[in-house]
Amino acid sequence: MINIAIIGFGVVGSATYETTVENAKLIEKRVGDTVKVKKIVDIRDFDDHPAKGLLTKNFEDVVNDRTISIAVESIGGLRPAFEFTKALLMSGKSVVTSNKELVATHGLELADIASRNNVSYLFEASVGGGIPIIRPLKQCLAVNEFTEIIGILNGTTNYILTKMREEGSSFADALKDAQEKGYAELNPAADVEGYDTCRKLSILCWTAFGKLVDIEKFDRKGISGITAEDITKAKAAGCVIKLVGRAKMVNGEVKCSVAPEIIPLGGPLAIADGVDNVIIVRGNFIGETTFYGPGAGGRATASAVMSDVIEIARSIVSHRRA
Amino acid sequence: MINIAIIGFGVVGSATYETTVENAKLIEKRVGDTVKVKKIVDIRDFDDHPAKGLLTKNFEDVVNDRTISIAVESIGGLRPAFEFTKALLMSGKSVVTSNKELVATHGLELADIASRNNVSYLFEASVGGGIPIIRPLKQCLAVNEFTEIIGILNGTTNYILTKMREEGSSFADALKDAQEKGYAELNPAADVEGYDTCRKLSILCWTAFGKLVDIEKFDRKGISGITAEDITKAKAAGCVIKLVGRAKMVNGEVKCSVAPEIIPLGGPLAIADGVDNVIIVRGNFIGETTFYGPGAGGRATASAVMSDVIEIARSIVSHRRA
Repeated sequence: MINIAIIGFGVVGSATYETTVENAKLIEKRVGDTVKVKKIVDIRDFDDHPAKGLLTKNFEDVVNDRTISIAVESIGGLRPAFEFTKALLMSGKSVVTSNKELVATHGLELADIASRNNVSYLFEASVGGGIPIIRPLKQCLAVNEFTEIIGILNGTTNYILTKMREEGSSFADALKDAQEKGYAELNPAADVEGYDTCRKLSILCWTAFGKLVDIEKFDRKGISGITAEDITKAKAAGCVIKLVGRAKMVNGEVKCSVAPEIIPLGGPLAIADGVDNVIIVRGNFIGETTFYGPGAGGRATASAVMSDVIEIARSIVSHRRA
Repeated sequence: MINIAIIGFGVVGSATYETTVENAKLIEKRVGDTVKVKKIVDIRDFDDHPAKGLLTKNFEDVVNDRTISIAVESIGGLRPAFEFTKALLMSGKSVVTSNKELVATHGLELADIASRNNVSYLFEASVGGGIPIIRPLKQCLAVNEFTEIIGILNGTTNYILTKMREEGSSFADALKDAQEKGYAELNPAADVEGYDTCRKLSILCWTAFGKLVDIEKFDRKGISGITAEDITKAKAAGCVIKLVGRAKMVNGEVKCSVAPEIIPLGGPLAIADGVDNVIIVRGNFIGETTFYGPGAGGRATASAVMSDVIEIARSIVSHRRA
């Protein structure tokens, strides 16, 4: 049996738990061993949850449990996720995360700590929600010299822009609707000003170009200045407005920008509506390939989290046999 | 150094050779060792090719070379590819292939021979050209109970249908054009009657559902009966006609069909024009995710071939260190 822990029992953490219950047999078949959630860390109470017996408020319970080999960090934000992740890696546990802020800020250091402790730090779920993108860049497209990555990487802004187009709403009204539906935070700056897209693009650059570009160096513009009139004009021209991140190799340097763009209908960037994300990858052999799907949502993100858990679990099983 | 051989020096084989020359340093960095083509087998002469010194007409030269650990089978068709692949696997070499006919027909047997000889038989390039799809199904989406796969998997028919729509041509004229451009064979039945799509769908079923469905059991209809009038009618209704493969889990059984469908513009299936392919995957956690890109072409297909070569090469390097 392979024991895992979930640190942070919010939308992603609880959906990750659901995978191990609903698809337990399938996971066992694909890993070659059972994968079981042994402990869940959260400061909140979940008295009515079927997993309540696994919950603890004490993070040390996981660090000190030698039978746990993989921890899922789904707290989000920098603190305490950074300290927790370091402690987990140094105690010899692999860590899987959906935390794009942490990966974009401290990813290099955490990957280094993981490597020195002979464990893994994986983050497929940190970009594009459930869409497979990190592993395809590292494995499926590994022979390519990457030249460019283009993406709609933030579900909140995409939802707002879709709403403005479909209903003619103002930015303020569409944002309010997104906040009421739980798609936008009360302080929406990280999303609407493009910081979240910067972070995800930075993670993609690290993966594709081997360089974790400082997001302060990005050319960044958010969508808060987009008016209903801008949207109407774009619509009349057969176009949509999307917040697009672009990273391009220019003379050995990675140039990154995040800004709203007017996109003609019919192309791959235009198909991502609502909270969907789309990522276009260009390389010197593949030409261009596109990944499209749910950029957010607990179950979709848990699909990505578990792809990392399953990869590590398979490796544990294979080393046990060797 | 990891030595590989290329068996069949056509469009895919020669592009695979190009990756090892053009991206040699990048491959070395990503594998942790140099990867070199040591021998190329083809019955034709390539006197002006820079790789002419590596060419041999004698397949046994590869089988008997113990320093070669990976062979790329890019001959296509069943014979002699089947016998060659068996001999290679039994001599302890991993085999990577773009040969969908062979994988769809003898994949189970070949995977079994590979497993018994402790080597790999990988076929990322057999479906969707350069689009990452086999590895995403096996790894990135591994936690999902797959429910449905939908795809435009044949570039030739998609090129013909795109041509008919854009230029109002008849099926016969569009086919002739595709033949002149080298996109369709002189005997086009495998493509236009849907057999090629059946084979690729069958490989996807094997990968996603664990069942290699006999293509004789598919509900199959090709595009040779599509008229210019059908296309015009679809166009007037804001639709396009595409040859679509569908595989669905129904009460534990996989139901497969391949047929032309009228698709509304704007959705992911409609964006694949020309020789592009698109594959939509549905699962119980991911919901739906889409892969889109070049379904054919030497360099794009070589990108997929080399993803398998790099995976095996990395595993050789990692076992050497262990």
